[in-house]
Amino acid sequence: MTTATFTVQGMTCGHCVAAVTEEVGRIPGVSDVQVELDSGAVTITSADDVSTDDVKAAVEEAGYELVT
Amino acid sequence: MTTATFTVQGMTCGHCVAAVTEEVGRIPGVSDVQVELDSGAVTITSADDVSTDDVKAAVEEAGYELVT
Repeated sequence: MTTATFTVQGMTCGHCVAAVTEEVGRIPGVSDVQVELDSGAVTITSADDVSTDDVKAAVEEAGYELVT
Repeated sequence: MTTATFTVQGMTCGHCVAAVTEEVGRIPGVSDVQVELDSGAVTITSADDVSTDDVKAAVEEAGYELVT
């Protein structure tokens, strides 16, 4: 298990948090996603390292931007 | 057909708009709901006048506040 933290821009409410959690949670190997609305911090627990490209794609699918 | 406009406080994103639209749209007799995110204006088209109590209940069910 490994954890990685990314920052997401544009989330404004609990629905946004839910949308990001859902999309990031669909990345293969991801077992947990914790999103902090105020800071935009998204902490991902996964079996192997997640790729930034996969996280970026999931965040954009949810309608937000990954800060890189 | 009649239309009435109410103001809702607390919506921050498109998900909020969708939640309010869905709940208000469930009020019997309502045929259309238009929500403007920036102003919080919710315009309801219905067969008969909608009751403010029904609108208030629907808005609160969605998680927001009706400005009265």
